[in-house]
Amino acid sequence: MSLTIKSHFASPTYLSFTTKPSRFTGYNTKIRPNSIYHFNPLKLTYYQPKKMQAPVQYSPAPVIKSSLIEPDGGALVDLVVPEGERGAKTIEAESLPKLRLTKIDVEWVHVISEGWANPLKGFMREDEYLQSLHFNSLRLKDGSIVNMSLPIVLAIDDETKERIGSSSHVGLAGPDGDLIAILRSIEIYKHNKEERIARTWGTTAPGLPYVEEVIIPAGNCLIGGDLEVLKPIKYNDGLDHYRLSPKQLRKEFDRRNADAVFAFQLRNPVHNGHALLMNDTRRRLLEMGFKNPILLLHPLGGFTKADDVPLDVRMEQHSKVLEDGVLDPETTIVAIFPSPMHYAGPTEVQWHAKARINAGANFYIVGRDPAGMGHPTEKRDLYDPDHGKKVLSMAPGLEKLNILPFRVAAYDIVAKKMAFFDPSRAKDFLFISGTKMRTYARTGENPPDGFMCPGGWEVLVKYYESLQAEEATQQPAAVSS
Amino acid sequence: MSLTIKSHFASPTYLSFTTKPSRFTGYNTKIRPNSIYHFNPLKLTYYQPKKMQAPVQYSPAPVIKSSLIEPDGGALVDLVVPEGERGAKTIEAESLPKLRLTKIDVEWVHVISEGWANPLKGFMREDEYLQSLHFNSLRLKDGSIVNMSLPIVLAIDDETKERIGSSSHVGLAGPDGDLIAILRSIEIYKHNKEERIARTWGTTAPGLPYVEEVIIPAGNCLIGGDLEVLKPIKYNDGLDHYRLSPKQLRKEFDRRNADAVFAFQLRNPVHNGHALLMNDTRRRLLEMGFKNPILLLHPLGGFTKADDVPLDVRMEQHSKVLEDGVLDPETTIVAIFPSPMHYAGPTEVQWHAKARINAGANFYIVGRDPAGMGHPTEKRDLYDPDHGKKVLSMAPGLEKLNILPFRVAAYDIVAKKMAFFDPSRAKDFLFISGTKMRTYARTGENPPDGFMCPGGWEVLVKYYESLQAEEATQQPAAVSS
Repeated sequence: MSLTIKSHFASPTYLSFTTKPSRFTGYNTKIRPNSIYHFNPLKLTYYQPKKMQAPVQYSPAPVIKSSLIEPDGGALVDLVVPEGERGAKTIEAESLPKLRLTKIDVEWVHVISEGWANPLKGFMREDEYLQSLHFNSLRLKDGSIVNMSLPIVLAIDDETKERIGSSSHVGLAGPDGDLIAILRSIEIYKHNKEERIARTWGTTAPGLPYVEEVIIPAGNCLIGGDLEVLKPIKYNDGLDHYRLSPKQLRKEFDRRNADAVFAFQLRNPVHNGHALLMNDTRRRLLEMGFKNPILLLHPLGGFTKADDVPLDVRMEQHSKVLEDGVLDPETTIVAIFPSPMHYAGPTEVQWHAKARINAGANFYIVGRDPAGMGHPTEKRDLYDPDHGKKVLSMAPGLEKLNILPFRVAAYDIVAKKMAFFDPSRAKDFLFISGTKMRTYARTGENPPDGFMCPGGWEVLVKYYESLQAEEATQQPAAVSS
Repeated sequence: MSLTIKSHFASPTYLSFTTKPSRFTGYNTKIRPNSIYHFNPLKLTYYQPKKMQAPVQYSPAPVIKSSLIEPDGGALVDLVVPEGERGAKTIEAESLPKLRLTKIDVEWVHVISEGWANPLKGFMREDEYLQSLHFNSLRLKDGSIVNMSLPIVLAIDDETKERIGSSSHVGLAGPDGDLIAILRSIEIYKHNKEERIARTWGTTAPGLPYVEEVIIPAGNCLIGGDLEVLKPIKYNDGLDHYRLSPKQLRKEFDRRNADAVFAFQLRNPVHNGHALLMNDTRRRLLEMGFKNPILLLHPLGGFTKADDVPLDVRMEQHSKVLEDGVLDPETTIVAIFPSPMHYAGPTEVQWHAKARINAGANFYIVGRDPAGMGHPTEKRDLYDPDHGKKVLSMAPGLEKLNILPFRVAAYDIVAKKMAFFDPSRAKDFLFISGTKMRTYARTGENPPDGFMCPGGWEVLVKYYESLQAEEATQQPAAVSS
């Protein structure tokens, strides 16, 4: 069975879903209620897709020839050393000058090691850093271009630079001191923080979460090199089974005979507006002739700002959304994207999209103001809410990705459900922002019926209750100390 | 005669002149002393290059088929309306809502109208602006990429936007109120100054000359559209004959049978270190097999910061340099590049190089810290001095240009002349910065013998004397007022 995907969208790759009237009549038709508490794509080894046209033999190896979108730069990197070499490499790492990584540095090691940043093989050297900073892309040796909008770099301070001396390689230790990787053929260069911040965020205003957390405290040098990771990065937080690598995801898409993969990046709870959009996208892909479009529901799992809902709560909420039948587990894969969050708007959304190409997604859903936030010091959005999707549709190296800008969904107070906003009866629609949603959950007030499935909403309410309980116990302690 | 150029430099385009030892023995050998006071390339219609291998008939038309490097995007734009249509277009312009341009806006109209920013046909619309800001390049309809590192935009305020209303076209008037152009099929979009500044300069620190002069006072909207310029932009400052368009330069390079054109961008007086470099470049191009490399000595003629030497003084100084035989008028074209200066380092140097491709240059000389300056609020260079040439060598759309990074020249106190710096005898070299040079000229002290040709130096001394005289007369006036 041929699963050729690209030919469906020769040109343009920017598909406006906003120009056609929606014929969507209900987001949960055809969706069978089904628990996904046990959902773990990797365990579903013998799952047989209903719509498969020819039986396929499943066995662990060899991998089925895939017709998914190619990873950037060709083959996926896999920078984890084979198990047989682990002992010798660990001994070597012990003998090298050592750097202590932060939690977020380790998240980047994870990201690079699995090929999310393909074809990057380690932390950026200066050539890659400059191309990323100035052009949001890298030119490969064969002349081709891949997108690379965020500098993926490792900072060290002057004292550490001194300590490395003339060593060509260094050992990388996690926050707890355990060696996790070797960085080879290193290059140390200047970390001009001001320039990096200005060119990445388009502002140098104080209060940008990643800047405050990562860049300001970091050293004045950057160290690039090739990564050899001693063993797969694990977090032991009960969520590692959700952390599927691009290779694992591709295998799963192939196993399900996906002929289109559409990715939805999020760092917030899923409400019914999101679900409407995802289901509507699937419906449209089917209309376009795809037989088996698979949704990659792909919450970001790395660093997020303090007032975002924590990963474990979000994963529980997402599970409920599938359990309640709002999304169809048969055509949905929920997995964690291990990247930290930059909140860098149009620059970051390219990274979010590019990484999903490497995981096999050829459709990317982009919303209003992706990876945006309020300006940290002025009363306005940091980015023009439309720039994200515009920049994404023009970004070098993303030409092969089909960008799906999404229509605005809001609560329709007449139909009592989330629906695509209809400007002709604007007064019937209620916009429920993330802040508004958090206020509902915090104050114990219920959002309007149909805003979110009850199971998912309950998860949020419980989280905010626990947060308030925690704050309540912390406040007297702070007073008494 | 075939003048194929590109085949000489298939790969890499980044030619390091620093790796070979120089066999240069004196910068003014083989150079005939020759007045260039009367030098105006366009008047030398019947000039016969010495090294031409076959006689060529010169006549104003038809143009000799050129094998110069292609302009970006194909044919050069020419946005000046034909003389026959001028009257009708002027009447139309009168009938449209009118915008009053600043002096620097007019410089950009000039730049765009002649094709320096090819294939740009007017002030950027938002799609072009975003690509320039984020990717330093534009993707054309055929999928090809051209470099475009600076946003070339026209700002208007809210009141003007209101006044334009729903008109599709506007008339553009110069600072004196004379109509100079029509901007057609306009698009008005937000001018996020902070983001523009941060992404263009890599800093938002106060004190950036172009920002203070142009962006801060500008309106909060940008207006893009296609330009129709009513007549060629002239300055009537006695230097217009130096303002050769890309088309005129190409004609002249062809007329001289250039088989390589190497451009030298500058906004400072030419000292003997510059000349050494330019002459050495020519020598090396000859060694590489080129028969007739022509130097485009191309001072920037638009906005410069207050303490830079003014254009008229620089042009006089450059004339003296050729008159004194430091550069060979036979193989040199001196012309003015009409662009304003951004002082935006690695971002701007791409613009400087790209514009010269459009004028026919296939070699571009790049020095230390091109378009750089001191950080406006910190005691350091704003840019890493090496980033300019690195970024240039990696910039999208500039692959066809041969980048010639230049070796550092300094004053050799033993040889008593400007020479390439030899680190093995570093103590014999004196670095004379622009600031130092200006101090010499201001204080009437002579720089070391051989730093600059006497005629050129005299021009500078006179300028600084006049400046001091002016300051002296202004000060009492200020006191008495």
